[in-house]
Amino acid sequence: MIKVGIVGGTGYTGVELLRLLAAHPEVELTVITSRSEDGMAVADMFPNLRGHVDLKFSVPDMSILKACDLVFFATPNGIAMSMARELVDAGVKIIDLAADFRLKDPQEWKKWYGVEHSCPELLPEAVYGLPEVNRTAIKQARLVANPGCYPTAVQLGFLPLIENNLVDASRLIADAKSGVSGAGRKANVGALLCEASENFKAYAVPGHRHLPEIRQGLQNISTQSVGLTFVPHLTPMIRGIHATLYAELNHDAVDDLQALYIQRYADEPFVDILPEGSHPETRSVRGANTCRIALHRPQGGNVLVILSVIDNLVKGAAGQAVHNMNIMFGLDEQCGLRGIPLIP
Amino acid sequence: MIKVGIVGGTGYTGVELLRLLAAHPEVELTVITSRSEDGMAVADMFPNLRGHVDLKFSVPDMSILKACDLVFFATPNGIAMSMARELVDAGVKIIDLAADFRLKDPQEWKKWYGVEHSCPELLPEAVYGLPEVNRTAIKQARLVANPGCYPTAVQLGFLPLIENNLVDASRLIADAKSGVSGAGRKANVGALLCEASENFKAYAVPGHRHLPEIRQGLQNISTQSVGLTFVPHLTPMIRGIHATLYAELNHDAVDDLQALYIQRYADEPFVDILPEGSHPETRSVRGANTCRIALHRPQGGNVLVILSVIDNLVKGAAGQAVHNMNIMFGLDEQCGLRGIPLIP
Amino acid sequence: MIKVGIVGGTGYTGVELLRLLAAHPEVELTVITSRSEDGMAVADMFPNLRGHVDLKFSVPDMSILKACDLVFFATPNGIAMSMARELVDAGVKIIDLAADFRLKDPQEWKKWYGVEHSCPELLPEAVYGLPEVNRTAIKQARLVANPGCYPTAVQLGFLPLIENNLVDASRLIADAKSGVSGAGRKANVGALLCEASENFKAYAVPGHRHLPEIRQGLQNISTQSVGLTFVPHLTPMIRGIHATLYAELNHDAVDDLQALYIQRYADEPFVDILPEGSHPETRSVRGANTCRIALHRPQGGNVLVILSVIDNLVKGAAGQAVHNMNIMFGLDEQCGLRGIPLIP
Amino acid sequence: MIKVGIVGGTGYTGVELLRLLAAHPEVELTVITSRSEDGMAVADMFPNLRGHVDLKFSVPDMSILKACDLVFFATPNGIAMSMARELVDAGVKIIDLAADFRLKDPQEWKKWYGVEHSCPELLPEAVYGLPEVNRTAIKQARLVANPGCYPTAVQLGFLPLIENNLVDASRLIADAKSGVSGAGRKANVGALLCEASENFKAYAVPGHRHLPEIRQGLQNISTQSVGLTFVPHLTPMIRGIHATLYAELNHDAVDDLQALYIQRYADEPFVDILPEGSHPETRSVRGANTCRIALHRPQGGNVLVILSVIDNLVKGAAGQAVHNMNIMFGLDEQCGLRGIPLIP
Repeated sequence: MIKVGIVGGTGYTGVELLRLLAAHPEVELTVITSRSEDGMAVADMFPNLRGHVDLKFSVPDMSILKACDLVFFATPNGIAMSMARELVDAGVKIIDLAADFRLKDPQEWKKWYGVEHSCPELLPEAVYGLPEVNRTAIKQARLVANPGCYPTAVQLGFLPLIENNLVDASRLIADAKSGVSGAGRKANVGALLCEASENFKAYAVPGHRHLPEIRQGLQNISTQSVGLTFVPHLTPMIRGIHATLYAELNHDAVDDLQALYIQRYADEPFVDILPEGSHPETRSVRGANTCRIALHRPQGGNVLVILSVIDNLVKGAAGQAVHNMNIMFGLDEQCGLRGIPLIP
Repeated sequence: MIKVGIVGGTGYTGVELLRLLAAHPEVELTVITSRSEDGMAVADMFPNLRGHVDLKFSVPDMSILKACDLVFFATPNGIAMSMARELVDAGVKIIDLAADFRLKDPQEWKKWYGVEHSCPELLPEAVYGLPEVNRTAIKQARLVANPGCYPTAVQLGFLPLIENNLVDASRLIADAKSGVSGAGRKANVGALLCEASENFKAYAVPGHRHLPEIRQGLQNISTQSVGLTFVPHLTPMIRGIHATLYAELNHDAVDDLQALYIQRYADEPFVDILPEGSHPETRSVRGANTCRIALHRPQGGNVLVILSVIDNLVKGAAGQAVHNMNIMFGLDEQCGLRGIPLIP
Repeated sequence: MIKVGIVGGTGYTGVELLRLLAAHPEVELTVITSRSEDGMAVADMFPNLRGHVDLKFSVPDMSILKACDLVFFATPNGIAMSMARELVDAGVKIIDLAADFRLKDPQEWKKWYGVEHSCPELLPEAVYGLPEVNRTAIKQARLVANPGCYPTAVQLGFLPLIENNLVDASRLIADAKSGVSGAGRKANVGALLCEASENFKAYAVPGHRHLPEIRQGLQNISTQSVGLTFVPHLTPMIRGIHATLYAELNHDAVDDLQALYIQRYADEPFVDILPEGSHPETRSVRGANTCRIALHRPQGGNVLVILSVIDNLVKGAAGQAVHNMNIMFGLDEQCGLRGIPLIP
Repeated sequence: MIKVGIVGGTGYTGVELLRLLAAHPEVELTVITSRSEDGMAVADMFPNLRGHVDLKFSVPDMSILKACDLVFFATPNGIAMSMARELVDAGVKIIDLAADFRLKDPQEWKKWYGVEHSCPELLPEAVYGLPEVNRTAIKQARLVANPGCYPTAVQLGFLPLIENNLVDASRLIADAKSGVSGAGRKANVGALLCEASENFKAYAVPGHRHLPEIRQGLQNISTQSVGLTFVPHLTPMIRGIHATLYAELNHDAVDDLQALYIQRYADEPFVDILPEGSHPETRSVRGANTCRIALHRPQGGNVLVILSVIDNLVKGAAGQAVHNMNIMFGLDEQCGLRGIPLIP
């Protein structure tokens, strides 16, 4: 059994992580911390966990965390980087679901997150936890930076094209739509039911923090210089991301892109390439760690449209984190991640 | 392994049954029938099942169904009673998720369902599949009538009071609210998103088919004559029933009703009595086979308010059917029913 | 033109009041105050008002408010009672959309609202602004206490029965369901889309502040002692209240209750009695100042079920306030209130 | 008073047209036809119209329609073209809200709509009813083809760029999201609340009927050859379209695009250019005939992102039709269209 601690965990990523870990046969949940909710039973905050999780939130205590095999950070940005050094030194593995270790360049981090990075020395060894790209490195990692939700859906959608240099990487477009749970469980007016339901809007068009993360990920696998226009939108539902991706095929475009995608993800348990001409639905992955992708080439032109859907809280956060844990600890990758999505 | 067939299964009860059975360790799904969808892959209709259920719908074939250990009917009313005789005679056990065998009196059936009952001879042996009341009989049953969704939430809420003769059974009120999935997966204008969302209404106030079912169930355990006013409502969400029950305490009212409820359901794996003063939420049981109940006595008066929530598709249909199967086949009652509800 | 000021107005009652007043032909909006949003354009907070309302929020200034003919308070409880004395003395009429002047007994107010009433001397002259009951008094009033949302739907539903002593007033039940806008535009976790959508729950069952208000209103017109069980629920939509009311007919029950209701409300422009057996929908009054009511007597028993729907922000708040204004200033009662509800 | 008839009218476009016309001071509604609902009161189908519209649906009768000044067709495609000839010859003006007269080329019509055009001789004189482009022609028109919902939002967003040759017209992208009311009031499984809520998906990516309509409109004003990738999506809400448009600026790009848009639409009562950097919300136009547009140039690159929102049932259908009527009959263009959007 892997002794697991969670720092943070009062948000939606936290409750989803708890749901998955509580049912994971190889995990022993030992501690979940929250300064503000110290002493509160987890099941009092999240009534779905009643009868499944007996823990109470407690104030973070380094001695307890150091006794864990693995600590997940389901915290706001900036917490993991303040505690990672000490835990890693104590031999505890870390998966950070926040953004602290996603960007390799601390200057870029400061530019987008507004504060100095407090643990730049761990950035080089931190592994970006997208298993479909970095599986080998994840196996050895002490510190995994779990990808953002948009970056997961967008990168998996573009990956085979960029790796094979099939499109003009300088003019990629990612038009992405997210459910409201992406905004977290914080009390803010914009996420109220009366503001966010029966409404659709774009946000952060001038620049979203996931832009540099996606750009870095795509640039790493590209021989061209990557140019990306990324427009996120808020859609009136709880869970789900739908990324609609546009790329222009270049001269080297192969004929059978469908076969290319199928082959690229043939051994990936959590990426599902739909039959050509399909329209994946976000609900088809609700609660599951799956990314479903479909390809279209409208009117036979040279614009390729890739549709990529995930559950932002699962493949876009907690599920991918559990997947990373499974890899880090040599378990069956699907262990604890076989739940079937809920329809309707 | 139990060889299981499903007759019907293109509706919401069907897909939920498939979701539960596909993950059930003791079940082998052998056939699912649908005349209209013959040849269609189940996963093409229900994209959540892609990768989990490989079956195709097929035209009902008695020889195949007779080779099953158990057949679930997830059909419209009237189908099960036309096929039950032959299957039972062949030694196949039956769980009917429709209403065909719920009412003991065929005249009452005709009155509420509009047609003659075509298999009245099986009515006496059919067991009403509310495990919290009929566990022993279910164990021996060849034919189980799975309860309706409203009747499950309402009966479990009133049960301890009626069994102990603590309230005036002649003036019970059940004000129940259901998500739209209760209306099924039929194309009807009233269940369109544009009609049913952002809207709340009562329906069938003059008389709903679940009224005689609830009345029969409560009368069976009551020494008084039962009088019930039942008002169902449609609430703009997919899953969930919230029953708000009103009863007047009589002279014999015990002091500690909370303790009574806890004791009554102490050994029931799927009934959860919340701490006094709680307000159960339908989402706390989304996707799970749990009924959560809370008691209130506003202003210390003699009106008792009981709040009872279930997921109409699980404890109110498919989950309870699997529970009944587990009992009928001597399995651990929770087998395949341990999934944790999804929040958010 | 009536010179109108609004104190408060950053909430949902405020924006709805602005929507109605901006289109009202006899109103000149002169000022809207908010300490926290001083200087912000109203249309920047409420984008629907862009092009329709040019005002900016400003810090409350008594000299400006005193220059108004009428001041609406769309504030949290406790503000109106601190400013009413001075405004009334200056000859300004007041309509308070909060609860400060609804309860006649300051002790009762303290019990339910937790603080001492700071202006008890105005309580006797404050008129409870339910036009269907108090039209004559409203005409003369200097200070109108605009009713709460639940109290409006519940009182209008019970009114003809109580006035005519047709039911057992000691065992009334009001099972009420409200859209989330009733919780206001405050940032609180419980009203987030991810908490309140796809969910249904009761709340405040031990005692809601609208209980004494309803009880006072019904007691005023009853010869019996009123006993009421009131259970409010949160339903996952933005606007609308559906009150399901239960009453037991007594010996004096007339035969034609439908005719009684029609007659009682014959001259009321904002109460619509539906044909017998109807099921009013909340969306049928969305955005309109209408209360629609239908009567049922299930199975011909002696329990009467009354269904009463309003838009909580209109007939339950801002629309009723404008109706009161129209009465106070001798205008056509429907002036500015003829908008047609929005379906779908 | 303009004597107005409506053919069709049992769908969402119909009820919205009725809502607007019932409140229009210059309109006398004389007849509304429906074969299937002959004899039914309009207010029984659409409860929001109760008290506002007294008409009943009736079987279409040419003699009655010919007595109208104007007939709206709110019918499925194919009806208007079968009746237009006779009505036009009788001197009746026509506004068709369906697609029959939108495409100038009858071959193109056949290709996308699957049947032969039955009235090609009227295609040349039919005026495409986008007032911001064709105001002068609309004034004189006998037959107006009211634009589709997506085409309205997309064309208004691209218009100033194409007219001024500022972007590469060969690689335009329109990623559009629509509320479910765009699917109409037909009973189809895909539009059920339980299918369409809590879900997001693209549809018709291989080719949507609005594509040739948009292309025709843009080509008409372009000196370049227009190439457009159009991807529509279904978003879980009732009303609203959000078009996210992408265009690459060419060498001739002016500096101040914001000023250009403001100037282009300065005299347009129903187009509102938001301050630079804004994110228009669909709810900001709910129920109103307004298109709100905002411009972004992310990271100062040469990709321009235009955000354009409308209410698909108003500016995208019934409201634009009323606007066209106002123009055709020489009324104030805003007459009957001044309603303020509903928030929340």
